[in-house]
Amino acid sequence: MKTFINVTDIGDLRQALAEAQEIKQDRFKYQHLGRNKTLLMIFFNNSLRTRLSTQKAAMNLGMNVIVLDVNAGAWKLETERGVIMNGDKSEHLLEAIPVMGCYCDIIGVRSFAGLTDREYDYAETVLNQFIKYSGKPVFAMETATVHPLQAFADLITIEEYWHSQFTIHNSQLAAHKEVAANNCELSIVNCQLNRPKVVLTWAPHCRALPQAVPNSFAQWMQAAEDVDLVITHPQGYELDPQFTQGARVEYDQMKALEGADFVYAKNWSCPGVTRPEDYGKILCEDMSWTIDEAHMAVTNNGKFMHCLPVRRGLIVTDEVIEGPNSIVIPEAANREISCSVVLKRMLEAL
Amino acid sequence: MKTFINVTDIGDLRQALAEAQEIKQDRFKYQHLGRNKTLLMIFFNNSLRTRLSTQKAAMNLGMNVIVLDVNAGAWKLETERGVIMNGDKSEHLLEAIPVMGCYCDIIGVRSFAGLTDREYDYAETVLNQFIKYSGKPVFAMETATVHPLQAFADLITIEEYWHSQFTIHNSQLAAHKEVAANNCELSIVNCQLNRPKVVLTWAPHCRALPQAVPNSFAQWMQAAEDVDLVITHPQGYELDPQFTQGARVEYDQMKALEGADFVYAKNWSCPGVTRPEDYGKILCEDMSWTIDEAHMAVTNNGKFMHCLPVRRGLIVTDEVIEGPNSIVIPEAANREISCSVVLKRMLEAL
Amino acid sequence: MKTFINVTDIGDLRQALAEAQEIKQDRFKYQHLGRNKTLLMIFFNNSLRTRLSTQKAAMNLGMNVIVLDVNAGAWKLETERGVIMNGDKSEHLLEAIPVMGCYCDIIGVRSFAGLTDREYDYAETVLNQFIKYSGKPVFAMETATVHPLQAFADLITIEEYWHSQFTIHNSQLAAHKEVAANNCELSIVNCQLNRPKVVLTWAPHCRALPQAVPNSFAQWMQAAEDVDLVITHPQGYELDPQFTQGARVEYDQMKALEGADFVYAKNWSCPGVTRPEDYGKILCEDMSWTIDEAHMAVTNNGKFMHCLPVRRGLIVTDEVIEGPNSIVIPEAANREISCSVVLKRMLEAL
Repeated sequence: MKTFINVTDIGDLRQALAEAQEIKQDRFKYQHLGRNKTLLMIFFNNSLRTRLSTQKAAMNLGMNVIVLDVNAGAWKLETERGVIMNGDKSEHLLEAIPVMGCYCDIIGVRSFAGLTDREYDYAETVLNQFIKYSGKPVFAMETATVHPLQAFADLITIEEYWHSQFTIHNSQLAAHKEVAANNCELSIVNCQLNRPKVVLTWAPHCRALPQAVPNSFAQWMQAAEDVDLVITHPQGYELDPQFTQGARVEYDQMKALEGADFVYAKNWSCPGVTRPEDYGKILCEDMSWTIDEAHMAVTNNGKFMHCLPVRRGLIVTDEVIEGPNSIVIPEAANREISCSVVLKRMLEAL
Repeated sequence: MKTFINVTDIGDLRQALAEAQEIKQDRFKYQHLGRNKTLLMIFFNNSLRTRLSTQKAAMNLGMNVIVLDVNAGAWKLETERGVIMNGDKSEHLLEAIPVMGCYCDIIGVRSFAGLTDREYDYAETVLNQFIKYSGKPVFAMETATVHPLQAFADLITIEEYWHSQFTIHNSQLAAHKEVAANNCELSIVNCQLNRPKVVLTWAPHCRALPQAVPNSFAQWMQAAEDVDLVITHPQGYELDPQFTQGARVEYDQMKALEGADFVYAKNWSCPGVTRPEDYGKILCEDMSWTIDEAHMAVTNNGKFMHCLPVRRGLIVTDEVIEGPNSIVIPEAANREISCSVVLKRMLEAL
Repeated sequence: MKTFINVTDIGDLRQALAEAQEIKQDRFKYQHLGRNKTLLMIFFNNSLRTRLSTQKAAMNLGMNVIVLDVNAGAWKLETERGVIMNGDKSEHLLEAIPVMGCYCDIIGVRSFAGLTDREYDYAETVLNQFIKYSGKPVFAMETATVHPLQAFADLITIEEYWHSQFTIHNSQLAAHKEVAANNCELSIVNCQLNRPKVVLTWAPHCRALPQAVPNSFAQWMQAAEDVDLVITHPQGYELDPQFTQGARVEYDQMKALEGADFVYAKNWSCPGVTRPEDYGKILCEDMSWTIDEAHMAVTNNGKFMHCLPVRRGLIVTDEVIEGPNSIVIPEAANREISCSVVLKRMLEAL
């Protein structure tokens, strides 16, 4: 694997999920792969989970790690060509990137959307410059339009909770085997078990946020055949079809949440699909979209998910995120696992 | 050992000091303990000694280390509940802490006192949130009210200098054995040797500083049975009794310093014990408290100690801190040793 | 090797270049040397290449690395004596440096020229304090007047390209051996091959920059016997003779570039050699000094070099730096190699 940006980069999802479970059983199993290999993590933006989980995954694999905060302790980088560089940017990405590539074996890049120029953001300009000029395998640690390490971790988490529920049901069912084996209740349960309803719901926020997380989440859920994805958001927040791939959109949030097995809350700013001039804007501040217990009550005892960091009181109430159905912490813990699989694949391909 | 905050956490002090010396003889002796274990160091405040010595100690023990500067390159964290998070803090500690716990085996936390809310500070709110929510062993890298890695290093240092002095005296005494064996001078010397007079003295400073260092120093000296601790400071600077444990206070600084074997200088702001409304304030700017050669002259050829960083010209003069009796550098060097013992204990208990 | 500041510290250059090639063939060959040894990298100024390449080199050698950004996440340091420290600097270098020395085996220091006090800068005050007070081997990661890791990498690069050119020419010459063996063309070619013309040329910049890079470049080129160094710059930019060691200066840039095999472009502010009151000033903003294709056209198919970061449009045009004769990336890549040799030497001498 030379790049990790889209779900197609990881290949067969069943195989990837199996590898994730294998690594979760023994995080140090592939430690020999990283010997004398160096990961360079480049942050153009802040990070907590990605910073920690990626370092941890790399160290699990025996790699050396160098962390570079580009706008703190390093040069600011020019990204345009044909510029007389007499401002505050003392180096051009076209020099900086190949140089960075000299001193490492694999590169992770975090570079958020600027949210002012849709074309620039959706062309993944910075990420693609790293791919083109670094000469090294590159993976996205959240870029302008995607956050695949998060989406992969989300998928791992959904699989784990759905599977464990399946296991529980199965044992419960086993007790009733003789009397219930042939009745239709079993069929219904099985049907539900095999295809969880996953609802990606927009929620309000005080700042304009990128679409990277919902884009990747939609893309990965659609790629996972056994997930029934529904997306709900106010009018104007339609995600880019290249990511949603025809997923069902339901503008009535409560209706969308009915019977949901997983509720994935996230804010995003206007993707500018229908009205490009609105790109990056906040179109709605309706606090009725905040996920509270009334929202969760209409689900099928649904699990609450969020990529974190989450603004309490805006995205979700204290009660829901601290409640027994919140799985945001195990979801975050799986970031170490998703990243381990990605780095393992990249190391194998060096 | 699951937490390291107070002197009682380390158990028997004789044993801890013996381990310190064992590790000082061979810093890499317990390197196998840290294999595939990760230390996460979380800094809410600046650090030099703690940052370096803790990393060094962890690497001596074979651990991986991740350093996180929370207010530089990471999210600002909300610490209150029931807040609508629409300000500059994009994540709540109640999510951030369990997440941090996911990616490591041991956590060190630096979080200074705010000095505006005594109750909040003395409840060790931030530290206790880490203990409660991270799911991992936690040690203080200076928190609101304690700095036990420093106090342990101070104790190691006092023991080393006192012991080496004892050794010298003993050999000198041996030469005079026949004539002096039974006279009272020997008794006096022995008495002094067995119980050094250690004076913790307040000194002036241009900024309001926390009480963490003097608190822990007093606590550890009182716990070490063979130390004669005297504390001296202007009226109103009384330390919290939970740390001083009945230690003698002498408000006349020169009187306190008479015959001192070790002079431990430190500034602190008002602990608010007698007048809570003065908590965190600067009550005294009297430069006569600055430790100079005249102060040192009344001691028993006393050693000068300070936890560093030290403001010259305020706490101590150039002459004293650069003089032959200044042991601030070996004292700082012992930070690697005290931290090594703490991490070893935590690794053994994983 | 206890210090690495000047070209004389590395000893015989032929031997140093041979070690560089040996390490480039197998970067991990000397990994046993760094076991349980810790490099402390101290940055008073920003860094990209030095930060990454030095970490990489240290990890190649099996060392542990601690990176300290002094003005970000650590204390600001006082450097003067006899000061009442009641300002924003909470620690004196005279404590901080010995303390830093406690927690590591080798120290790298980055500390740029302030460009306001020539005497202070050219005395290498900060660097020499580290050498004097840290108790550990110290190397310059660009200091007030020198950047030897860069100059060593530059020399490695020039040798590699000159040698490969020599090899090509030799094989071409072999074909003509019988007819040309004794004619004067061969002699001229050989003469050129054995002694490349290297031109260090000043170029304009929007900010006042230190002289560290041109100082070290001149010093190293002069020490390398088989290099023909010419320096070109506007009047008033004369470099300090302690570094140029009598190198030829040609004030006509185009004349200097004629027949050049290597063009080393760099801006620097006034070194204050002829007029000390001009130290650190920008004396010339003449954009005709920018290296463009017209400049390169008069060279002997010369290679373009720059230490990076480079301001495009000021120092060099897009066309030249992106052109086939630009070797700035392999030059930067050799930073890992030069640093590996230096650290290897220092580890061997511990």
